Amino acid sequence: MAKLNENYLKLKAGYLFPEIARRVRTFSQENPELAKRIIRCGIGDVTEPLPAAAREAMCRAIDELGARETFHGYGPEQGYDFLRSAIAQHEYRSRGAEIEDDEIFISDGSKCDVANILDIFGHDNRIAIPDPVYPVYVDTNVMAGHTGSADSSGNYAGLIYLPCARENHFMPDLPQESADLIYLCSPNNPTGAVATREQLQQWVNYANEHRAVILYDTAYSDYICDPDIPRSIYEIEGAQSCAIEFKSFSKSGGFTGVRCACAVVPKKLTGQTAEGTSQALHPLWHRRAATKFNGVGYPVQRGAAALYTKDGRAQVQSLIEHYMGNAKILREAAQKVGLEVFGGENAPYLWVSNPSGLTSWEVFDLFLTKAQVIITPGSGFGQCGEGYFRISAFNSRENAVEAAKRLKLIMIS
Amino acid sequence: MAKLNENYLKLKAGYLFPEIARRVRTFSQENPELAKRIIRCGIGDVTEPLPAAAREAMCRAIDELGARETFHGYGPEQGYDFLRSAIAQHEYRSRGAEIEDDEIFISDGSKCDVANILDIFGHDNRIAIPDPVYPVYVDTNVMAGHTGSADSSGNYAGLIYLPCARENHFMPDLPQESADLIYLCSPNNPTGAVATREQLQQWVNYANEHRAVILYDTAYSDYICDPDIPRSIYEIEGAQSCAIEFKSFSKSGGFTGVRCACAVVPKKLTGQTAEGTSQALHPLWHRRAATKFNGVGYPVQRGAAALYTKDGRAQVQSLIEHYMGNAKILREAAQKVGLEVFGGENAPYLWVSNPSGLTSWEVFDLFLTKAQVIITPGSGFGQCGEGYFRISAFNSRENAVEAAKRLKLIMIS
Repeated sequence: MAKLNENYLKLKAGYLFPEIARRVRTFSQENPELAKRIIRCGIGDVTEPLPAAAREAMCRAIDELGARETFHGYGPEQGYDFLRSAIAQHEYRSRGAEIEDDEIFISDGSKCDVANILDIFGHDNRIAIPDPVYPVYVDTNVMAGHTGSADSSGNYAGLIYLPCARENHFMPDLPQESADLIYLCSPNNPTGAVATREQLQQWVNYANEHRAVILYDTAYSDYICDPDIPRSIYEIEGAQSCAIEFKSFSKSGGFTGVRCACAVVPKKLTGQTAEGTSQALHPLWHRRAATKFNGVGYPVQRGAAALYTKDGRAQVQSLIEHYMGNAKILREAAQKVGLEVFGGENAPYLWVSNPSGLTSWEVFDLFLTKAQVIITPGSGFGQCGEGYFRISAFNSRENAVEAAKRLKLIMIS
Repeated sequence: MAKLNENYLKLKAGYLFPEIARRVRTFSQENPELAKRIIRCGIGDVTEPLPAAAREAMCRAIDELGARETFHGYGPEQGYDFLRSAIAQHEYRSRGAEIEDDEIFISDGSKCDVANILDIFGHDNRIAIPDPVYPVYVDTNVMAGHTGSADSSGNYAGLIYLPCARENHFMPDLPQESADLIYLCSPNNPTGAVATREQLQQWVNYANEHRAVILYDTAYSDYICDPDIPRSIYEIEGAQSCAIEFKSFSKSGGFTGVRCACAVVPKKLTGQTAEGTSQALHPLWHRRAATKFNGVGYPVQRGAAALYTKDGRAQVQSLIEHYMGNAKILREAAQKVGLEVFGGENAPYLWVSNPSGLTSWEVFDLFLTKAQVIITPGSGFGQCGEGYFRISAFNSRENAVEAAKRLKLIMIS
């Protein structure tokens, strides 16, 4: 009798984005004409063309696969040296963070990495998760059996929630209790907040003191404009002994439909056995990749590496500037009509206080029905997200300008 | 204090292929001239060019990503409809197996699927695994904590090993004890054996009777030449209520360096809760993909779909014929010098009895040092693999002919 993983049954049915899709579908069926006007500022997916450098490199790599002499079959499960090395150099060593090539593990996405990393940890860790938060951090812990059931507010028993609010600039304070695994994300999804050097140093000190591991998600690091904000946790003294970092090409290189990312697992980083022996995590993650993964496709890795060429870097920069230009337009429009806006300065997300008296889902429905603009209700990211909504700057300029116009119209009327 | 997953520490250090790589490296350093002659008939990786249909479709898809109007960002985590539908139609419905499009889940490889499928099952299942076997089935169960430690022969406590030998034509007999999850692979890696319709019907009956789930790996199904051998378990009456099938493009379309595969989870298939309630597994696997995966890249899915066009099918067929031509050459050479050969008729692998008095690793060393031909020692696939070695037919024709020649020479001398 095959027993299923009953932890899955604890998951709440309405994962955020399917619920949004359902409401949009219902609205569109009932209002087919208005549906044509819909502008999506909800899900954080890129819209602009893939950089030419990546496209050209991928097509060249595919040509290589067309001849026996240059064919590539199975690659190293941990990624090709040319890409590991480019990432280590451009993302880390060039910023003074001494990360070695083989501490970089290439993957098909940060969502996968953030989920899979739990494989190498035990089941008895105390898990600290910010609130509001990218739902994957929570749901993967539920699925792994690290929580009890959800209460009526949607919070799972056994997790340490770290509230983020305007008082702490949407970056969590150190927990009162002792945490073993800590999720941090900067620039933050959903709030667009960024961690300062001082905040990160506090977390790194905490983690080293408690022998905790920080799972640091930097999917949006290329959107940081302020030179004083660290783009990697390894810019902080002591981080290599307490942090795993996740870096993605999805939002920097427009790779959401191509799939490439990496996890950085420093060799200095250790976990503990029940008996209290320290053991490096690097060989565990290496073994996981060798056993449960077969690497990222060769053409994709060539495409990602091309983002670090001179042309590639210029093209990535121009993508970032495009989306940050949208963020500025949307931010100014929201402020103009008296909404309180956070984020959007070092991140492609704006985090906006609800118009008074409305819940997040009511704002969602209002914007959908009256303006045909799709936003993301803050409460979908956790209990502390109630009272806010997220506007994504991932759009064409035309759509961003039009969404800004409608936002002003609806708030004035 | 972050606790690690101590089950990883139970894994034996020498995963088969790294150990082979180590011995080859040592030999090459000591014998740089002879090393130039090395022919690899070890790891099962394709060598021939990627079919033109796939290359062209992938490059067209990359072009699409170069314009906003045809850009594709995040796709559905479960795969694009065009590919799910092509697989369901060509692999299943055309053979009378009524698999629906949305029972197909696109992934980046069967290794990943076979490993990840354990996520949706509980930790208290009795797991039956053939011996010899693809090491990933065993190791992923060790990592998930489904076993005790390994004994001196490398067998893990808590697993039900299903011995495969010449007496049962290398297809396992039904276990005496009751199993909940059963791994089967046909055409088999490493033995090249295939399951007959009658054998599969026995297993399906067993699984339905015990409410067990069969995990059926068909990575090599396109190599089946005998029309009486089922290419899918769903050709067997009753399989949809007891089997998950894994299908890969790695060996059919030469996709080992591109990465695309699928898992088939029929909606009729159920698992049990501890309380004994049946629950469909389809929504659990769907939820897993939505939460822990972000789909396969758009160009890759276009490439895989192109393998089902008229040109694509012809090109796949010609790849298969190439490798099976190699298998015939190697098979005849081995038989000619009196070796007992299994497999190689419906599979790209030959399973050969060791020359008398030698262990599998001794055969490996003999072939490496005397003929510079790399084979895979049978014992690397499990205790019952001792006494045999695997020759892979994945090679250029030139290399296959040369390997066959050297095999004869070494066995005669």
